[in-house]
Parts: sequence; C-alpha cells; structure tokens
Amino acid sequence: MLSFENDYAEGAHEKILARLIETNREQLPGYGTDHYCAEAKEKIRNACECPDADVFFLVGGTQTNATVIDGMLAPYEGVIAASTGHVSLHEAGAIEYTGHKVITLPQHDGKIYAAELEACLRGFWEDESHEHMVFPGMVYLSHPTEYGTLYTAAELEDLSAICRTHQIPLYMDGARLGYGLMSHGTDVTLPLIARCCDAFYIGGTKIGALCGEAVVFPRRGAPKHFFTTVKQHGALLAKGRLLGIQFDTLFTDGLYFQISRHAIEMAEQMKKGFRDRGLPFYLESPTNQQFLILKNSLIDRLKKHVDFSLWEKLDEDRTVARFATSWATTEAQVGRLMEILDEVMS
Amino acid sequence: MLSFENDYAEGAHEKILARLIETNREQLPGYGTDHYCAEAKEKIRNACECPDADVFFLVGGTQTNATVIDGMLAPYEGVIAASTGHVSLHEAGAIEYTGHKVITLPQHDGKIYAAELEACLRGFWEDESHEHMVFPGMVYLSHPTEYGTLYTAAELEDLSAICRTHQIPLYMDGARLGYGLMSHGTDVTLPLIARCCDAFYIGGTKIGALCGEAVVFPRRGAPKHFFTTVKQHGALLAKGRLLGIQFDTLFTDGLYFQISRHAIEMAEQMKKGFRDRGLPFYLESPTNQQFLILKNSLIDRLKKHVDFSLWEKLDEDRTVARFATSWATTEAQVGRLMEILDEVMS
Amino acid sequence: MLSFENDYAEGAHEKILARLIETNREQLPGYGTDHYCAEAKEKIRNACECPDADVFFLVGGTQTNATVIDGMLAPYEGVIAASTGHVSLHEAGAIEYTGHKVITLPQHDGKIYAAELEACLRGFWEDESHEHMVFPGMVYLSHPTEYGTLYTAAELEDLSAICRTHQIPLYMDGARLGYGLMSHGTDVTLPLIARCCDAFYIGGTKIGALCGEAVVFPRRGAPKHFFTTVKQHGALLAKGRLLGIQFDTLFTDGLYFQISRHAIEMAEQMKKGFRDRGLPFYLESPTNQQFLILKNSLIDRLKKHVDFSLWEKLDEDRTVARFATSWATTEAQVGRLMEILDEVMS
Amino acid sequence: MLSFENDYAEGAHEKILARLIETNREQLPGYGTDHYCAEAKEKIRNACECPDADVFFLVGGTQTNATVIDGMLAPYEGVIAASTGHVSLHEAGAIEYTGHKVITLPQHDGKIYAAELEACLRGFWEDESHEHMVFPGMVYLSHPTEYGTLYTAAELEDLSAICRTHQIPLYMDGARLGYGLMSHGTDVTLPLIARCCDAFYIGGTKIGALCGEAVVFPRRGAPKHFFTTVKQHGALLAKGRLLGIQFDTLFTDGLYFQISRHAIEMAEQMKKGFRDRGLPFYLESPTNQQFLILKNSLIDRLKKHVDFSLWEKLDEDRTVARFATSWATTEAQVGRLMEILDEVMS
Repeated sequence: MLSFENDYAEGAHEKILARLIETNREQLPGYGTDHYCAEAKEKIRNACECPDADVFFLVGGTQTNATVIDGMLAPYEGVIAASTGHVSLHEAGAIEYTGHKVITLPQHDGKIYAAELEACLRGFWEDESHEHMVFPGMVYLSHPTEYGTLYTAAELEDLSAICRTHQIPLYMDGARLGYGLMSHGTDVTLPLIARCCDAFYIGGTKIGALCGEAVVFPRRGAPKHFFTTVKQHGALLAKGRLLGIQFDTLFTDGLYFQISRHAIEMAEQMKKGFRDRGLPFYLESPTNQQFLILKNSLIDRLKKHVDFSLWEKLDEDRTVARFATSWATTEAQVGRLMEILDEVMS
Repeated sequence: MLSFENDYAEGAHEKILARLIETNREQLPGYGTDHYCAEAKEKIRNACECPDADVFFLVGGTQTNATVIDGMLAPYEGVIAASTGHVSLHEAGAIEYTGHKVITLPQHDGKIYAAELEACLRGFWEDESHEHMVFPGMVYLSHPTEYGTLYTAAELEDLSAICRTHQIPLYMDGARLGYGLMSHGTDVTLPLIARCCDAFYIGGTKIGALCGEAVVFPRRGAPKHFFTTVKQHGALLAKGRLLGIQFDTLFTDGLYFQISRHAIEMAEQMKKGFRDRGLPFYLESPTNQQFLILKNSLIDRLKKHVDFSLWEKLDEDRTVARFATSWATTEAQVGRLMEILDEVMS
Repeated sequence: MLSFENDYAEGAHEKILARLIETNREQLPGYGTDHYCAEAKEKIRNACECPDADVFFLVGGTQTNATVIDGMLAPYEGVIAASTGHVSLHEAGAIEYTGHKVITLPQHDGKIYAAELEACLRGFWEDESHEHMVFPGMVYLSHPTEYGTLYTAAELEDLSAICRTHQIPLYMDGARLGYGLMSHGTDVTLPLIARCCDAFYIGGTKIGALCGEAVVFPRRGAPKHFFTTVKQHGALLAKGRLLGIQFDTLFTDGLYFQISRHAIEMAEQMKKGFRDRGLPFYLESPTNQQFLILKNSLIDRLKKHVDFSLWEKLDEDRTVARFATSWATTEAQVGRLMEILDEVMS
Repeated sequence: MLSFENDYAEGAHEKILARLIETNREQLPGYGTDHYCAEAKEKIRNACECPDADVFFLVGGTQTNATVIDGMLAPYEGVIAASTGHVSLHEAGAIEYTGHKVITLPQHDGKIYAAELEACLRGFWEDESHEHMVFPGMVYLSHPTEYGTLYTAAELEDLSAICRTHQIPLYMDGARLGYGLMSHGTDVTLPLIARCCDAFYIGGTKIGALCGEAVVFPRRGAPKHFFTTVKQHGALLAKGRLLGIQFDTLFTDGLYFQISRHAIEMAEQMKKGFRDRGLPFYLESPTNQQFLILKNSLIDRLKKHVDFSLWEKLDEDRTVARFATSWATTEAQVGRLMEILDEVMS
C-alpha cells in the first residue's frame, strides 16, 4: 500500500547500495577506524567549514541523543528541551535512563523561544535553592522540529548567544537536517549551524541511509574518551564501514543535499495538492512533514488506501494527521495520493 | 593487506546485499514490524525448534548484552560470567553502566565450570551477610568463548540444571554461534541451546551480516515490554528491515550454517598449516579463532605482510596472537598466509 | 535570630533524646534488626490499622523517595507527579539519577486532579506510539503538598481508584504527614491513607526526629529484596537503632500526633496574626506552612529580625514568602513574630 | 547478651549525646550550613593539617563511598579496589548502581600491593584494545582494611606516587580510621593520609557517633557542585546539625583519638587473652577487629553466651570468626569474654 507514514519506509539510496557492493570484500579494520570513515569525516568537515571538527558515526537517533547528551552533561545536570522535543517524549526515557532530567520549555510549533530559555536559565541561578535542583547543563534543539518547522538563522544565533553567556553547550538533533537545509527560503546553512552549536548530528537514517547518524563537534570539543563512551552505550559498530561508506557516499558530489531537496520538492507538490483541495493545515511546515487537520470519517476512508500517521486527537471529530515525503518519494506517489484524496472526498 | 585480524573485516554475504537491493523500494513499516522481520523470526523459531520463542533483532553485540542483561535482572542482581567473558572485560563497562555488577568466576580456556558456578551460588545463599551483597541474578556464557572454545552438550546441560535449581536464567552470548555449531565434533545444536538457555543471541555481525544480532527467548519469556526496553537502550532501528532482511536471508536454505561451516573449514586448513610449521598453539580451539604463541621477532616480520591480533603478552619474548577466519575467508587467503609464514620463518 | 524558615530548625523532641540516652549502652544488632525497630514497626502497623504492613526506616526524604520509587518501578516506567512535586523540582534529579522520568501533571495549589490523572493515563494507552514513550508506572502525591495544602478523603479515594483501574501503585510522600493528619477539618486519617495508597512514608525529620522516615507498604507488598535495594541506595544505617528508637518514641502514647497538633495550633495562631494585620495569603493552607504575598520592601525590613523562606517572585514588587511552624514552635515565638510585624509595618 | 559482633552495637559517646541535648532548641539553618558544621570542618582541617580542605558530612559508609566515587569518576571510568574491599563485596552493588565497575586487584591480608597496582595500570594503557575497556579512574583503599590490617606510611606513599604518575586520585575509606591511627606502632598519621590521598573519609558511625562520615578533599578539589551530587544521592540531611554537632564533639579535645585508643587497648587485651588460650589467629591484625580460626563445635558453644561474626568457612570443621572491640567496649566485657572462653573450652 502507498505510504506517506514516515521518512524511513524505504531502504537506502541506490548509490549507497552500489558502494556497499563495490567495497564489500575489501578487508577493513573495525570500529570506525577504516579509511571510508576517515574520508567521510573529512567531507563532513568540509561541508561544515570546520576543519577541526571531531566527527563520530553512530547508528540511530535515540542512541545518538542519549550518548551525546550523557557524554556532555555532568551527573548533576539536565538538558533543556521543548516539551515536544523527541528526547522529551518519544525516546522511551532514554535520557533519564542515563541519569539526566529533561527540563522542558514551552513549545511554539515545536520550537523554543530565546526569551523563555533565558528566563529559565536566569530563574535557575536566581533561585535561592538552586543547589537542590537539576542544573541546566545544555540545550537541545531539533531542526527541523518534530512539527517540521525551522529556526531562522537569527533565532539560532540568539539561542547560541544565550548558551554562551551561560556557558552551556547548544546541541542540535538533526535527524532530518537535510530537509531543513534544503527547505525553500531558509537562511540556515550547515556552516551556520556549526558556528552556533557545540554539537549536532547530521541524520542519515531518514535521509537516504539504511542507518547512521553523523555527530559533529565543530571546534574539536568531543567529550574526553568519547570513543569509549560510544562503546559503553552499545553504539559502536564492529563494522564501522557500514556507516563510513554510507556517509562517504552521501557527502560525495552533494548527494545528501540533492536528495533532501527532492524530498522538499515532493512536499511542496503535496502541500499544493492539499491546499487545492481545501484541507486545513495544523501548522505551516516548510519541510517534508505536513500536518493536516482531518475529520475522523475522512481518515477512516483514506486509511484504506494510504498509510499516514495520526499525530494527536484535536477534538471528538478531528485528528491531526502527518504526511511525510522523503528522498524516496516519487511524483507518481504524490499524484496517486491526490487521486485517492479526490476519490474519498467526493 | 591480507588480514586475519578478526571476523568482521569484510562487508556482508553477497546474498544479503542482493536481497537488500531487491527489496529496497518496498515501503515497509518501521521498528521491526515489517513482514521480513516476521518471516526471519519464524525461520529462527523453526531452526531452534521453539515455536513459542520471542525473537528480537538488535544491532550489535555489546548493545545486545547490555539490553538483555539489564532487561532480565532486578536492580539488586548481577550477572555471573567468566573473568575473560566479553561482558567482563571488553565492553567498556556497558553492563555496569546499566547498574549491574559482573560477578566473575575463574575461566578455563574461556569457559566456566559447573562445580565452580554451583559453589558460587551456594556460597552466596549460605553467606550470613548475603543481603548486603549483589544477588547472582543470571549466568552469562559465550559460546564459542573469547578463546574459541566450546562447551559440550553435557556441560551446557549441567550449567542449565544448576541455574534452574537456583531459579536464575542462563544466557548465552552467541556472537560467533554459527562457528560453534558448525565446529567439527561438537554435540551442541541450536535446539539444545534453546532447551538449556533462557535467552541467547544468534550473532549476525560476525557471520555474514553487516550488523545485527537475533535475541531468542525460547519459551516466550521476553522481559515485559522488552520492545520499550530496546528503545530505551537506543537499540531500536527505525529501519528494522535492515535486520529482518539480513536474518531472513541467513536463515533461508541454511545459509547461516553453510557459511559458518566454510569458516570452520578455512580454520582447519589454517590450523593444519600452523601445525605443519611447528607453531605452538596457546590452547586448542575447535572454531574460527586460533591462538598461537609467537616470538616477538616473528610477529614483527609477519606484521609487515598480514594483519592479526595480539592477544596478550606471555613473557618478555613471546606473545599470544590470534588469527581468525570467517565466512569470507578464501582458500587463497589461507594459502597466502602460509606462504608469508614460510617466507618470514625461513 | 527567630526563625520560621522551615520545620527542621531544631533538634529532636526531648522524649526522643531521653530515650536515646536511656538505651545508649544497650548492645543491639545492626541494620534495623534490633527490637526497637521491631516495636516501632508494630506500633506503626497499629496506627495504620494494617497488621500485615511491611515497614522500613530510611534516613531522609529525597533518599526515601528515590529508593521507594526506583524499587517499585520497572526500568521503562516513570512516576507521575505534580509539576511542583518535591520529586519534580527540589531533589536535584535524584529520581532521574535512578533512571526514571518524572512525568508532570499540572498542579492546583500543589495538588493533582483525578480527572487530569485519568486523562494522562488514558492518553498514554490510546497513543499509537506509546511503546516509544515512558510508561506511567506509579503516581506520587505529597500530603501535605509543598504548598501546605491537603487532599480530601474523597480526592484520595478517587486517585486511588484510578490507580487501581490502571494497575499502578499510588505512593504518598508524607514528609509532613503529621501536620496533615492533625489539620483542623481534614477527613483524612492514617488508616484511610493506608487503604488508598500502596506505599507511603511517615515523615520523622520534620516532625520531631533528628532524622528518619518510616516507609509503609500497607498490605505487605514491599518490592522483593527491598532490604538490599535500601542498602544499594546507601540508605541503610548500620545503627538502625537510631531510627527505631525515634519512631518507637514517636508512636508511643500518640506523641507523633500530639506534637503535630501543636504545630497546627501554632500555625493557626500565626495565620490569625497575619489576617489581623491584613497581610494577603498566596493561597489557603490548612497546615503548618503559610504563604504570604509580601512587598519586597517589607521583606527587607522583616529579614533583619526573623528568618523565613522566599518562595517565588510574584512580580517586580512582591514575593511569595513562606512561614513554617513545627512541633518546636512556641507561643512566645509566634507572639514575637507578631511584634516584629507590628514594628516593621508601622 | 554480650556482643563482640561489630563496632556499632552501642549508641553514641555520651559527650555527643550531651551536646545534642545542650544545642537541641537552637534554631539552625539546614543542610549543613549551620555553625556547628563549620566549626567541625575547621577542627578537621586542623587535625589533617590541611587549611584548604573541602569537608562534607555524609550519613553512612556505603552512601559515602558511592557518592564520592561516582562524584570523582568519569562515566567511562571504574575504581580499583582489593577483591575484599568493602566496595567490591559488601555494598550490594552500590558502586555499580552508579554505573561504575569495581576493578579488583588481589588482596593480601586485605591490602593491595603497589607493584600489582602499577602492573594493572601499565597493563591497561599498553593493551591495544584499552579503549574498549573500563578506564581505571581512581584507587580505593580501606584503612584499616576489612581484615583490620594497616598500610605503612611507606606503602601509602608508594601507592600515592603511582596514582600521581597515572594522574588518578587515591581515595581512602576510613570507616574505622581512628582505630587505624591509634594502633600501636603505626607510622600513619592523619596529615600523612591527607598528603597521600586526594579524598578520604573519617568514619564516625563506628567510632562514637550515632551516624556520620566526614569526607575530606585535602587540597580543595571537591568535585564541582558536590553539594548537589550529595543531594542527588539522597545523602544530604535536612538537619545537618546532627552531623556537625557530632563531629564537632569528636574533634574537640581529641575525643576521636582518645576513644579510638581505648578500643585498641581493649583489642590488645582481647588478643592477649586469645593468645594465652592458644586460639589461632587467621591473620595478624593491629586494630580493633580480630580474626580467629575456630572449630565449629567451639563456635556452637560460644554462640550461646556471646555474639560475634562468622567471617568465612575455612574448611569442613573450622570457620574464621571476627571479634570486634569499639570505643564502647569495657574491660569488664573483655574479662567476661575470657571467662566464657574458659568455660566453653574446658
């Protein structure tokens, strides 16, 4: 059945599979010490304009968030995140499992506001009893957010400035980073992210890879012995080549950006189709995830022909539904979705 | 350069890569809920003769050990293992990171002895102050062990009986399980393991897969909500298909066993070559890992032509070296190793 | 200087000190296995009308919350609490340190509402992706709350019924339980608490003891091997007698209730004094903690003569201040506080 | 019944109880910020000849070990200890609960040897795969050890030098420190300990206090925000006065040393009595714990009249038994023990 349920419904970009086959019998050292990993890291440093960056390849998003956050926080510190942040809600308590509180700020279409961050940090230090509380030790952003929305360059710079004033790192979850970078009209670039953040990851799983996330500490600054921390968290692949070859391919000839842009174009076609059919959007998302407010009766009819996610119940009759495009979405699929909509709405 | 350094130096068996390509554009649900995972689980149940087994696919060995052990132990319990067990020494404290002590028993060529296990358990319960101690909550075996050695069926049955008497689960780390099952002369079969153990994993990473380990709870018995535990440990792949397709391929037409047997045949050829050249073995291993006692001067000359692992320093002049074959080792490679030996030893 | 800063500013009730001296040279077994602990437990069982209760003595409140909550939750579960709950805010992340999320509900004068609890629980189970989320594994109440407020018997029964429907335990933090039980007009009794809750603790530190909290599992039901869990959390005193003798004294001839009632009487006198002087209350508290809205200029003048807590900034000019009475507060102290108020307000 | 079972069978030294009563109604700030704590800390700094020391008061030994070790280690580090160290065996896995491995060295009458420590540390760094292992992050000693034995000044200096070469802290568990310092013939002083160690604690619970251990970081050097770490571990008493007043009393006019010396004198009398009666010692202990090898039949008869600990089974017929004196032991009690021995041995 046709699926717009998420951006990880297919395997990998064919160029990646081809490279895996070409390199398959090459004997390589383990644990990410092979030359493909080295080359991939160098290409990522170039793309970020960070010649000194420490780069690590991990397997999945929850694992990456838990390993990086736990690696960067002191035991008495927690991480600040939007109440809808992935680490707050949908990682089965993986952050708390490592011993750290997720301190939540209000979310605004998935984003946090600089003024509220500053008030939170100031409030903590002014509180007479702050030594009895969890110290805010870093800030977590997702970009795009869980609602597909994006920070502007100015917003990132403001958040970064606050973090620097308070001497805590800014960390960005880039599970869908490519879709953010290739969104029409964004002024956020990879080098800007590298300047603003102290750590971030470039998502592979949702953008053309079988698995894999590339963690970047842009100005060196990886936590001491982070290799061992990665191992301790069960996040070190014996066949590190699987990650190195994938990221090497994604960052050769701009493949990562090119397939991300394709997903955005498919999303724009889909949005236009939704708009033309008068379907109300839950919020304005400039990336590959689109949130509609649908009547439950329409959902029932649609679900017979196409898969998509139910995000949250809005009221008794209506539900927020998510439709996601990806690097793998075809024009034919978007077209078929519109045909289905026309059929069930008629 | 030629490598016998480990059994994860190449990519994946070509049939796996072919299946990944064939299935690549199929849209599948995430997190291991796809039909390839379901089929792979069913094939594994059949191979284990355990129609009721709970099967989970995780990504790597350390991760699997930490997730399963933490999932099965109460907080006040630890896991008993050989002092040379992987969980004791080479997982960067991943078990302790989850809050559990690794209680060590003496190792005998990598194995633990039933009598010593029984004495340990009896000693605990007889100790007046045992409530102030870590409770022995499960037993960890690796099979083959870190030294390539194997338990006999009788040894496994004895260990299992002790565990059942003391009502603690027996868990087997099968990172190299195929190489154990296909060893010449072993009387241990997959169904026997399933009868003796309460949990075990069938290693994929070292036996033909890019990554992936299949955890089996043979008589149902997975810890409650284990899916969420897997997620919490960062061990849940969004593209669960990557694991499902690989294990489905490995357990179709006996591929897993066939490629394991090949590795054993290569190991036997290699052993014969070592023996013919008078090289002393550190211990007798019936599987794909062979441990030699080499003079350091010989090691220096060899290392210019072939990669292998240095296991431990024996004395000032000699070191224990490990040579591993795998599913990917060719006769030509073994032949070349012997030529190199002849050259450097002459 | 006169202090109404908190309810732990003095040592212990003199009867406790006298008993410590009388029993001092008696040689007793360690770790809470002495006869004073046994007798104290029996008296507590009687007071709770729970002949089968498991009772444990721990040292302090944060420790007790962390040990009980960690002991009762599965690793994939979190604890539901009011956003102002002590475990949410003022325990330095002690709960998260044990690996568990604190899931917050809105607070209403420090309390949670049954309807919101039910919606939270129902929402969790109805959420399609709940297996990717922290399971709500127990409910935490404080009674009195951090704002001195109290649940009614009907409210406790409603909360208890919801917990039972969802098969999760209800846990009450009774750091100030005596002050709640002796509040004028409350219909909540110790036996009622024991019927409604699956675990609760009777606070000693704030009610006449040097230290110590008595954890009660009213219908047996202590987590398996809880003694060892207490030890593992560093909460087991070698000289358990220190706790046993104190609770034995507190639960002999109703001392605990009698000194709690005294604190309430002092609080009522203080409230009347505040009311008579037209000082606005932040909220209506029927227990020993009273919250006033004070002008900052008044605070500055008062602070020269009396200690009290600043709770939170209300606006630029006003702050919420807390005045606490305790078992040790005297009428003379309350009188002196009023004199000081009259002086600085004139 | 007469007890030599341990050194925590009685309450507190009478001077401590007297001070608790004298100060009882003084209103003091909480959490160890009162002037008694400040004065006690200053007296301890003087006794240690460490004017810059950071001093913290915690409640019990297991708690102190877990809090200090967890506070000083990075997450990827473990603590090195003798196999018989309290942290290895008798703290219910409290160290592992905080995520850290206890790396054991062989014990020699309870002590570790400098040469073996050095070999362990060198071996770690020389191991090709050390990044896959737990980093040795600190060294734990108990002094006196669990067998009552003592390090010499030269031994401590050697261990300290090795730790400094490897840049890891040396930590001493001084649960019975006074008994070590007052042992006849020791050349170890408190200032020497402070020079050799980076952290240590002066035990109160076993030397005259109701509870309490004083942690000393001799050259400042407390882990950052250690107050919050103490709180997070549930080790912060609201009524910190209870600890401050006790340690203030113990370190006024040398009470701590004087009552420790008394325990040693009682132990020497007891040793002489054992020796005179031809009872074989398990090892030579110069402190308050004495270990005898007793026939099981003798143990059965003795146990009817006196309590003592059974340490370990030596063989079918004999058991190692521990007899402990303390600050509270009287000459009459030692005399009575000898009478009992004469009765049951005749």
